[in-house]
Amino acid sequence: MKPKIGFIGLGLMGQPMAANLLRAGYPLVVWNRTREKMQKLIAKGANGAVAGSSPRNVAEQCDVLITIVSDPPALEEVLWGTQGAMAGLRAGSTLVDSSTVSPDLAERISAGCRERGVDFLDAPITGGTWGAEKGELVFMVGGEPGVLKKLRPVLSVMGKHIFSLGPNGAGQTVKLAMNALLALEIQAFAEAMAIVTSSGIAAEKLVEVMQSSMARSGALDIKAPVMIEGKFAPSFPLRLMHKDLGLALELARRRGIELPATSAAYSTYSAVKAATTEDVDYAAVARFWKK
Amino acid sequence: MKPKIGFIGLGLMGQPMAANLLRAGYPLVVWNRTREKMQKLIAKGANGAVAGSSPRNVAEQCDVLITIVSDPPALEEVLWGTQGAMAGLRAGSTLVDSSTVSPDLAERISAGCRERGVDFLDAPITGGTWGAEKGELVFMVGGEPGVLKKLRPVLSVMGKHIFSLGPNGAGQTVKLAMNALLALEIQAFAEAMAIVTSSGIAAEKLVEVMQSSMARSGALDIKAPVMIEGKFAPSFPLRLMHKDLGLALELARRRGIELPATSAAYSTYSAVKAATTEDVDYAAVARFWKK
Repeated sequence: MKPKIGFIGLGLMGQPMAANLLRAGYPLVVWNRTREKMQKLIAKGANGAVAGSSPRNVAEQCDVLITIVSDPPALEEVLWGTQGAMAGLRAGSTLVDSSTVSPDLAERISAGCRERGVDFLDAPITGGTWGAEKGELVFMVGGEPGVLKKLRPVLSVMGKHIFSLGPNGAGQTVKLAMNALLALEIQAFAEAMAIVTSSGIAAEKLVEVMQSSMARSGALDIKAPVMIEGKFAPSFPLRLMHKDLGLALELARRRGIELPATSAAYSTYSAVKAATTEDVDYAAVARFWKK
Repeated sequence: MKPKIGFIGLGLMGQPMAANLLRAGYPLVVWNRTREKMQKLIAKGANGAVAGSSPRNVAEQCDVLITIVSDPPALEEVLWGTQGAMAGLRAGSTLVDSSTVSPDLAERISAGCRERGVDFLDAPITGGTWGAEKGELVFMVGGEPGVLKKLRPVLSVMGKHIFSLGPNGAGQTVKLAMNALLALEIQAFAEAMAIVTSSGIAAEKLVEVMQSSMARSGALDIKAPVMIEGKFAPSFPLRLMHKDLGLALELARRRGIELPATSAAYSTYSAVKAATTEDVDYAAVARFWKK
C-alpha cells in the first residue's frame, strides 16, 4: 500500500509536485498558508487531495511529510509555530524538506526529528517550474542513505535525478553552492551583454558566438532569450535567488571563506530587487544595466 | 595561387595556427621575438616556413599578415616599434590581428592601415590550444564584410566558426565580453566548490549534480576536472586572462557601465597572479581558496 503523504507549501514548485504525487496515486493531505491554493488539488474529488486544518493536523495524518516553503522563517513557522507540524509528526514517519534554507537550519530540524523518532531528509530541488511540472526535478539530498532508499519511490514521482550528498545539511549546502553559481552565470552573461550592447553590437551576436564555444551553458540556453527580450515572468523569482545568495554568504562566513564574486552578485541582485515592484525572474538582474 | 602569408607571434596559439597554414599549403614567412620558436616551422625544409628578419621584413613580403601576440604593448611594438610591421605593409595587402587587445587599439590600427591602403580585420579567437591544434578555433571578426569574405579561406584553415560582428573593434569587444564571462564562470565554480569542500562534501559530487542540471556548462566540462585535481598546466594562462579582465574593465569605464562581478573577479585573479610564480592556467584561480 502506498504511504499517505502530507504536503505543505503549494507555491510555484509545490503545486505541480503535489499534482504529480496525486497523479501517481498517492493519498495526499495538503496545507497552504493561502488556503485558495489548495483548491485545485482538492477539486479532483475522490482522487483529489484532502485539506488539513493546520501543519500539525497534516503531520498527524501522514507517513511522509513533504515541506516546500519560500524561506527559513516560513519553514520555522510551519514546523515550530502555533499548530506547527513538528509536534504532530508520528514516530516512524519521515519528514522531507524541499525548501531552500541554511544547512544549519536543516541540522536543527534533524535534531528535532531525532528526538521524536522521525526520519529526516533535507532535499532541496532544482529544475524550475518546468521540471516540477514534468516530474523531472533534481533532488539534492542530505540524510541517511537508508532513509533515502525508502523514500526513493516517492521522490522519483517528482524528480529524475536524486543525489545522496552526505548527512543532513549536505543537500542544502550543495543547493546553495549551485544557486550561487547560477546567479553568477546569469550575472556574467548580463555583464557580457552590457559590454557588447553599450558598444553598439546586438546581444544576439554575442549569444551566437558563445553557443559555439566553451562559453556555452545550460543557463545561457534557458535565460539568454528572456534577457534579450527583457520579459521576466518568474520561473525562479529574483527575490528567492536574492535570499539564496544571502544564505550562501552566511554559510561562507560560518566556514570562514570569502566569496568575492558571489558577494558582488548579491549587491547587484539587491539593487535590482530594491528597484523592482512586481515579481520577476532572477534573470531580471539584467535590469541593472538598463538606463 | 595561394596568397603569401606572414605570421607574427608563435606562442601557445600562434605555433599550431601557423602549422595548420603550412599544412594547407600556404607559403609562410614567420617572425617571433624569441627566435627559437620559429625553428619547428622552418625545419620542415622545402615545405617549411621562411624566417623574416623583422616584423617589417615579414610585412614587406606578404599578401596577408597575421599577428597574434600576448598583449597591447607587444602588439604596438610589433606594429609601430623599430622595424615594425606597419611601415612594411604593402597597399592592397591585409592585416589580420588575432591578439586580444582593446577595441580602441583595434580602431587605431584600422586608421593606420587605411592610410596605407591596407585592409584590416580584428579577429581574436577562442578555443584554446586544443582548438588551435585541431583547426577548430572560433574567430570573432570586426571589419568590412568584403574583406572578411576574401580572407575566409585562410581563416577556415585555422577555425571552424567565423563570426562577422561589426566594424573594426567589434571582434575585440565580443572577445573581451566572452573572456569576462569565462573568467566569471570559472570563478563561480571555484566559489561553489569552496562552499561544498569547506563543508566536507567532495567537489566531484557538486559537479555530478551540476552536470545534470541547468548549471551544466562547457567551461565546467573542460575545467572542473583540472580544478578538482589541482593541476594547472596552462591552456589559457592566468596572466592573460587577468590582462583580458583588465581590458574588459577599461572598456566598461569608457562605455560608462559598471561590471560588479567582473571587478570582483579581477581582484581575485590579481591575488592569485601575485601569489603564483610559475605559469598556470586561469583555472588556477581556484587556488584563492587553498589554505
